[in-house]
Amino acid sequence: MASKHDILSVLQDVQSGALTPEDALLHLKLAPFEDLGYAKVDYHRAVRQGVPEVIYGQSKTKEQIGGILAAMEKRGSRNILVTRIGQEVADYLAEQFPLRYEPLAKLAVALPEPVKGHGSIVVATGGTSDMGVAEEAAITAETLGNRVTRLYDVGVAGLHRLLGNLEPLMSARVVIAVAGMEGALASVVGGLVDCPVIAVPTSVGYGASLGGISALLSMLNSCASGTSVVNIDNGFGAGFLAGRINQMESAKE
Amino acid sequence: MASKHDILSVLQDVQSGALTPEDALLHLKLAPFEDLGYAKVDYHRAVRQGVPEVIYGQSKTKEQIGGILAAMEKRGSRNILVTRIGQEVADYLAEQFPLRYEPLAKLAVALPEPVKGHGSIVVATGGTSDMGVAEEAAITAETLGNRVTRLYDVGVAGLHRLLGNLEPLMSARVVIAVAGMEGALASVVGGLVDCPVIAVPTSVGYGASLGGISALLSMLNSCASGTSVVNIDNGFGAGFLAGRINQMESAKE
Amino acid sequence: MASKHDILSVLQDVQSGALTPEDALLHLKLAPFEDLGYAKVDYHRAVRQGVPEVIYGQSKTKEQIGGILAAMEKRGSRNILVTRIGQEVADYLAEQFPLRYEPLAKLAVALPEPVKGHGSIVVATGGTSDMGVAEEAAITAETLGNRVTRLYDVGVAGLHRLLGNLEPLMSARVVIAVAGMEGALASVVGGLVDCPVIAVPTSVGYGASLGGISALLSMLNSCASGTSVVNIDNGFGAGFLAGRINQMESAKE
Amino acid sequence: MASKHDILSVLQDVQSGALTPEDALLHLKLAPFEDLGYAKVDYHRAVRQGVPEVIYGQSKTKEQIGGILAAMEKRGSRNILVTRIGQEVADYLAEQFPLRYEPLAKLAVALPEPVKGHGSIVVATGGTSDMGVAEEAAITAETLGNRVTRLYDVGVAGLHRLLGNLEPLMSARVVIAVAGMEGALASVVGGLVDCPVIAVPTSVGYGASLGGISALLSMLNSCASGTSVVNIDNGFGAGFLAGRINQMESAKE
Amino acid sequence: MASKHDILSVLQDVQSGALTPEDALLHLKLAPFEDLGYAKVDYHRAVRQGVPEVIYGQSKTKEQIGGILAAMEKRGSRNILVTRIGQEVADYLAEQFPLRYEPLAKLAVALPEPVKGHGSIVVATGGTSDMGVAEEAAITAETLGNRVTRLYDVGVAGLHRLLGNLEPLMSARVVIAVAGMEGALASVVGGLVDCPVIAVPTSVGYGASLGGISALLSMLNSCASGTSVVNIDNGFGAGFLAGRINQMESAKE
Amino acid sequence: MASKHDILSVLQDVQSGALTPEDALLHLKLAPFEDLGYAKVDYHRAVRQGVPEVIYGQSKTKEQIGGILAAMEKRGSRNILVTRIGQEVADYLAEQFPLRYEPLAKLAVALPEPVKGHGSIVVATGGTSDMGVAEEAAITAETLGNRVTRLYDVGVAGLHRLLGNLEPLMSARVVIAVAGMEGALASVVGGLVDCPVIAVPTSVGYGASLGGISALLSMLNSCASGTSVVNIDNGFGAGFLAGRINQMESAKE
Amino acid sequence: MASKHDILSVLQDVQSGALTPEDALLHLKLAPFEDLGYAKVDYHRAVRQGVPEVIYGQSKTKEQIGGILAAMEKRGSRNILVTRIGQEVADYLAEQFPLRYEPLAKLAVALPEPVKGHGSIVVATGGTSDMGVAEEAAITAETLGNRVTRLYDVGVAGLHRLLGNLEPLMSARVVIAVAGMEGALASVVGGLVDCPVIAVPTSVGYGASLGGISALLSMLNSCASGTSVVNIDNGFGAGFLAGRINQMESAKE
Amino acid sequence: MASKHDILSVLQDVQSGALTPEDALLHLKLAPFEDLGYAKVDYHRAVRQGVPEVIYGQSKTKEQIGGILAAMEKRGSRNILVTRIGQEVADYLAEQFPLRYEPLAKLAVALPEPVKGHGSIVVATGGTSDMGVAEEAAITAETLGNRVTRLYDVGVAGLHRLLGNLEPLMSARVVIAVAGMEGALASVVGGLVDCPVIAVPTSVGYGASLGGISALLSMLNSCASGTSVVNIDNGFGAGFLAGRINQMESAKE
Repeated sequence: MASKHDILSVLQDVQSGALTPEDALLHLKLAPFEDLGYAKVDYHRAVRQGVPEVIYGQSKTKEQIGGILAAMEKRGSRNILVTRIGQEVADYLAEQFPLRYEPLAKLAVALPEPVKGHGSIVVATGGTSDMGVAEEAAITAETLGNRVTRLYDVGVAGLHRLLGNLEPLMSARVVIAVAGMEGALASVVGGLVDCPVIAVPTSVGYGASLGGISALLSMLNSCASGTSVVNIDNGFGAGFLAGRINQMESAKE
Repeated sequence: MASKHDILSVLQDVQSGALTPEDALLHLKLAPFEDLGYAKVDYHRAVRQGVPEVIYGQSKTKEQIGGILAAMEKRGSRNILVTRIGQEVADYLAEQFPLRYEPLAKLAVALPEPVKGHGSIVVATGGTSDMGVAEEAAITAETLGNRVTRLYDVGVAGLHRLLGNLEPLMSARVVIAVAGMEGALASVVGGLVDCPVIAVPTSVGYGASLGGISALLSMLNSCASGTSVVNIDNGFGAGFLAGRINQMESAKE
Repeated sequence: MASKHDILSVLQDVQSGALTPEDALLHLKLAPFEDLGYAKVDYHRAVRQGVPEVIYGQSKTKEQIGGILAAMEKRGSRNILVTRIGQEVADYLAEQFPLRYEPLAKLAVALPEPVKGHGSIVVATGGTSDMGVAEEAAITAETLGNRVTRLYDVGVAGLHRLLGNLEPLMSARVVIAVAGMEGALASVVGGLVDCPVIAVPTSVGYGASLGGISALLSMLNSCASGTSVVNIDNGFGAGFLAGRINQMESAKE
Repeated sequence: MASKHDILSVLQDVQSGALTPEDALLHLKLAPFEDLGYAKVDYHRAVRQGVPEVIYGQSKTKEQIGGILAAMEKRGSRNILVTRIGQEVADYLAEQFPLRYEPLAKLAVALPEPVKGHGSIVVATGGTSDMGVAEEAAITAETLGNRVTRLYDVGVAGLHRLLGNLEPLMSARVVIAVAGMEGALASVVGGLVDCPVIAVPTSVGYGASLGGISALLSMLNSCASGTSVVNIDNGFGAGFLAGRINQMESAKE
Repeated sequence: MASKHDILSVLQDVQSGALTPEDALLHLKLAPFEDLGYAKVDYHRAVRQGVPEVIYGQSKTKEQIGGILAAMEKRGSRNILVTRIGQEVADYLAEQFPLRYEPLAKLAVALPEPVKGHGSIVVATGGTSDMGVAEEAAITAETLGNRVTRLYDVGVAGLHRLLGNLEPLMSARVVIAVAGMEGALASVVGGLVDCPVIAVPTSVGYGASLGGISALLSMLNSCASGTSVVNIDNGFGAGFLAGRINQMESAKE
Repeated sequence: MASKHDILSVLQDVQSGALTPEDALLHLKLAPFEDLGYAKVDYHRAVRQGVPEVIYGQSKTKEQIGGILAAMEKRGSRNILVTRIGQEVADYLAEQFPLRYEPLAKLAVALPEPVKGHGSIVVATGGTSDMGVAEEAAITAETLGNRVTRLYDVGVAGLHRLLGNLEPLMSARVVIAVAGMEGALASVVGGLVDCPVIAVPTSVGYGASLGGISALLSMLNSCASGTSVVNIDNGFGAGFLAGRINQMESAKE
Repeated sequence: MASKHDILSVLQDVQSGALTPEDALLHLKLAPFEDLGYAKVDYHRAVRQGVPEVIYGQSKTKEQIGGILAAMEKRGSRNILVTRIGQEVADYLAEQFPLRYEPLAKLAVALPEPVKGHGSIVVATGGTSDMGVAEEAAITAETLGNRVTRLYDVGVAGLHRLLGNLEPLMSARVVIAVAGMEGALASVVGGLVDCPVIAVPTSVGYGASLGGISALLSMLNSCASGTSVVNIDNGFGAGFLAGRINQMESAKE
Repeated sequence: MASKHDILSVLQDVQSGALTPEDALLHLKLAPFEDLGYAKVDYHRAVRQGVPEVIYGQSKTKEQIGGILAAMEKRGSRNILVTRIGQEVADYLAEQFPLRYEPLAKLAVALPEPVKGHGSIVVATGGTSDMGVAEEAAITAETLGNRVTRLYDVGVAGLHRLLGNLEPLMSARVVIAVAGMEGALASVVGGLVDCPVIAVPTSVGYGASLGGISALLSMLNSCASGTSVVNIDNGFGAGFLAGRINQMESAKE
């Protein structure tokens, strides 16, 4: 049900009087669910949103990823993000597909094509060790069609580094604040800017950083309004969400 | 420094040749900081953003809140949110100021004036017990000029309740998903909609809900892209952030 | 005491008048305990329940497992589950016994014989990464004589995948819901079906998933009635319990 | 849609040829969701399962509960469980409805009618302090039409108490093991019986019992197969699930 | 032993040749221990350090505190700090002793005498809610003879407030940074100043602030060198330690 | 079975030849279990060990405790410990029974009779706030026939207090070390003495003491051999165990 | 000071009248401390207690351990326990010293000599996986001169295994209960025996066993009186303490 | 801006009348921030404080570290600390720079020059396993120009070891107490000395030491006044802070 064929058939039922408009509405409302039941969801979504598809690579074998890529390529997908893969998997995939691998972000863009960046997302990090997660966010956002400015190593223990970069921060539409250890970057940035801030705690640190829990709690407790948080090390999630917000259009009213 | 008067004076220095444009830029870049140093920040922000001011009431005496309100009223502030106050404090304030108190949200709007809502924010809750937090979010957003639709008690254990309300969800610009216990609402909603989702874990529950930690962890681990999280019970933060996103205008490019 | 020989002797005492029926009853009531004291428990249980024996392989050397299997084979045991063993141990055992090894589930069935499946157990997973645990559950249940249907990768962030598979879910006698990360699958499934649901949190995820704790807490807090939870990654336990429930017969009254 | 009236109408469409059997099946499969969207879910469920309705009282005002009860009474509902309410709420309700209140379980049965108990559920507790939770489980199960045997204060630190009650345990179809502190009861019972065991950790204890977390962890780690766990103090959930299992009929094949 | 009388006696033994200087040294080295065994420690310490005595009031009855004060007064003690007492206890004590009670800090100075403040300690807080703990630190330090400057409500979410107060911060010999919620104040201050920073997490906050744990972890993970941390809400400890550091004299070499 | 009557009957069976000595041994070995099944356990234990009975009062109503005491009195029990009861319960009981109530320990001895103390148990505390728990331990031990020496407020932050009391420590047969906060007392005492040390963490403290968890962890990690730990605030458990150890007799070989 | 030479000198001072007996007593009381300051403590202790010395191997290089052993051998030490070392370290040491290595316990006895065991210690384990920790306890106790009985794999999920071994348990002077996962063994054993029980949680398990925390909490919450707990996997500590208790002699009075 | 050149230019503006003194003050107050924005911060700091620069090596490649060192050498930096690097990185660096590597502390001093130590810092450890962290603290402090005394393996379970070293402790200006497991060293030392104590918890231990959390909590709860805590294993932070305190000069008033 709920393929285009099904939708037609429902409408035909209405025409023939077999279904009232009310029941037909019900059919149509549920259609997107059924439709996706045959894994057609991604095509649909890509068409609707202009969003490239994503393969979460962490728990998949290289053969599985290769298989999925092959199917996607056949359907005409381009700019496919493959996240959380190592060099070895990237090498394997690169033998079969055009592929740009970013070792710092442990992320590849398969079947890459030029993407024009719109709007303005700033990705800021507390330290250099946070750059891997930050790059996952930045490249995700760029691949999704956003313009990204990187401000790395601007942690709060050396406030001058942040204050010396007010211009890009102030003119951003969305800021992604990536920090481990005490995670204070999100609060300070959140207090400076007037746009939405997405905080990404990282597992950088040792001892009482508890693998990112310390930064996570800090960010959740941020007194700066306009800040929200994603999972520890979730650069992809932050980049994806930032893209969604950055590309919002004016409300009709 | 950095009031409008100060800014003018810097520009006059430039005109008179006393300051180079470079130095003047520096002055202006830092102005918002100095300015706020004399607590003038709020006036400035309100002018710039059309945002009413907020008093976080939890840790203040009713006399303190009254004093702040009086000062704000004198300056011409209206629609001032006072969050996390009880009936008794509200009664005290209502003797001195026009005040609309919302007992479920434990929130008041002082010196209320009609606000026209723009765009579309949906506030959804998992259960009826989450309504207090949800109302804090909804009223915050409304007071900040957003149009809000409430979908309460649409938790995932009775999926039909959610699926029966697809229309408002699908047409929202931002969704706030408020849930305690297992907090699964955020994932399910995040998988349905294409707009940003702000998840608010609540402290509703008992036993292994750990005062909201269970819902918080669930929401952080949501496999649905486009979702971010605020602190447990932080309805205000969610409403404020949702308003920021909802009111975004199209990027120039 | 309490071997068959002992039981006979007690009955002889009764016959000879040496023991009253009451005392004999006591003897017999305690017999299973004594009996098992000589490690005879498993034979007894297998006879009584038609249940194959299980060797928990994780903390045993391959030689120990081989020794136990040899003893079991001698006694006539068949379809013996050996859980949590790697390929190397499986290879070692396969040299000595007919053995079917399932690498995904890290589980072997030694001395396999055809088993007819009864009733209906559905094993559903949130993602593909949960399949290892799910297969441990499914193969355990199958080996214990249950019919199993697999519904993998039907996580709640893409609700259509679940809703497109309502039929097997609705007709199941028991559902095993296997999920990591936010673990919401259990709640959604629990709200859909009317049969017992066994939730299995998995250690799949990163960051705030805390090695499965997040999914575990979610599942414990599920608002869906009829759901209970086993330990993180405990596919065997879920499969075993599901089998017990699936094979229940009607109460006499 | 999906009320009996709707179901009839779908079938009439099939009869008249307006809907194929395939489409009709779809209608019926999805009906429970829509149906519940108008809060009609409970009638349907009661008819189908012979299950009384339940009101979770913890987060509701007495007026709200009274209103729901009044609506239910009008529809003809009987034997309605109202969980987690205090004496005061019970007194308020008792003025308006026939009501049996159980202070130990903090649970009421409104509009009570005799229920015949079937099968056999044993509710066992580690100590006398666990009796409140145990009674919530027991009365829930009884109200749902199950026969319940109580074995209270049979904790493992005095093993004789448990061993002196082997008979009811051994002949149970389901056992609910309720225990706080070290929660070992579930493991010991799980090792004794061959039926499903539902473990309920309680918040009874002090210090390192951590409000029930200690018992919860113990129960999740139980080495006894056939055991699963519900949330801390969740007597209702255990009683409900036990009823479901106890009332299972033989699989057709 | 080890009272002044004892010390004399040891020296007399040396003079008389009964003890070698080596053995005498040993006697004297251990003397403070024995001496304190009879609760004489405080006199000794006060003489040596010019430090007033402190009574930790939290776990003592008002009668116990009164008794200790009476004994101290008799010995000539003045400026005695009594920490963590409520108004009622303070009123009771004030009937018997000259007493200055500070309700915000829940701290009293009994038998108060003017103290001249030396050096420079800054006590800064993130918010107004942290003032109780900050006052405990400030008054402790003042009573111990330190000059204290208060910078309250200079949290990092409004950086201008901190940057507008650089002068006192920069000229401090020790800074006490008091903050709840995300506790980022310590990192930012630690990055600005060159003197030792003592961070005091407070239990101010809600939800994921976990009663001060979030701020504590942040502060422990501070990337700013020169920062150390005391227990949650331990204003006294911070004030005492700050006083010790502030009053250090130049090393001889 | 297994009452004295039963034991006699088994022996008669042996005499009559109906039971072999081996079977009779089995009967007797299991007797305490059955016997206790009818709550007769306590009489038996008291006879065997000279140990008074104990009522854990925390979760019982005063009427329940009174009922149990009445039954015990009738059987001839004396020196019955009733732990964790408040003054009100004690007053209620004192109207019906001779009763000595210890408010600090929140413990009563009902039907008290003089007990001669044997051996030597030292109960030491880190601070005065730990005295409630310490008294529960001390009075428990005394009532069970042990000689107890109290060393209160000898915490490690003032080492002289401990070193000034070496004599009783060094001559103890068992030491109970009671401490909250950092719980270091157990390690220091454990390093000084050669007898078993029972460490009792207390919930005394604030902030990062986490209700006794900090002291508990410290004590478990003690580098001093010969130390073991009981639950937080479990004075009774420590006193009971100390009594067992103190009253051990020489091994036969 | 405080070497034998020093002690003599103090006594000579007394004889010569230079020190009063009181001061001399003080000297002697403190002597063990000073003495140990030069690392002579172990000789003293061994002489006094007949206890062999112990080297905690975990954090030491094989060369360090070898050096310590050489020094000990020179002084005449025998039966020296070296805990927590791997096969490689053992092989290295065995080239230089007579050495018995126990791979399961990861423990060696260097310069082994026959030790006669006294009294009766039972070491019981819940499962076979707990045997490494149990052997560390057992061999420690044996080397310290205690008779040890091993009861392995008698976990509570198969109660018959424990009940079939009541005799050794009942006649033990001390029981060491070693268990991971739910750790219930300690409670069950503690309820059966009348002697002190030392519970050792192990890190055996997975998922919610949290590396032994689950078993640790269970054991701390045991409702069985007479039980205390040591650190996770601390077999040595349990064996050492059990030896101390087992070898206690009758109190003089 | 804000280099010396910039400062001069501002003053010239004042002289020329272009800037009022008030504005000039503002410029100067903010100068340190801007200045550091171009990474010039370190030169400035070194000049001002005589402090060598530090490279946190943990998250940097050897090439990155080499590059930074080369740049520093060119500017004339000497005695540069490189913390948390392994032997391999040290070997790589030693090929290019004069370098002293300390394997125990995993720390190198690049371009080493003799440093004269001032004042007196004592670094004490609970055990030999804590020496790595202690050496990181000690060498940091020495490189920063402080005189350091090491007191290793003086843990509280053998109090004599600590008491035998009272002299250096008593004459220290700052004490760093390094300990894992129960972390009691900080409390005992804090109670003995009158100078500031910096406590460093280490991750040494197993089981319930929780990777240093146990020691951390102990130290935070220390009842000894004058003690503060740094992150687990943070030897560098402790050494740096101790240096700051040790080198304080007398307050002017």
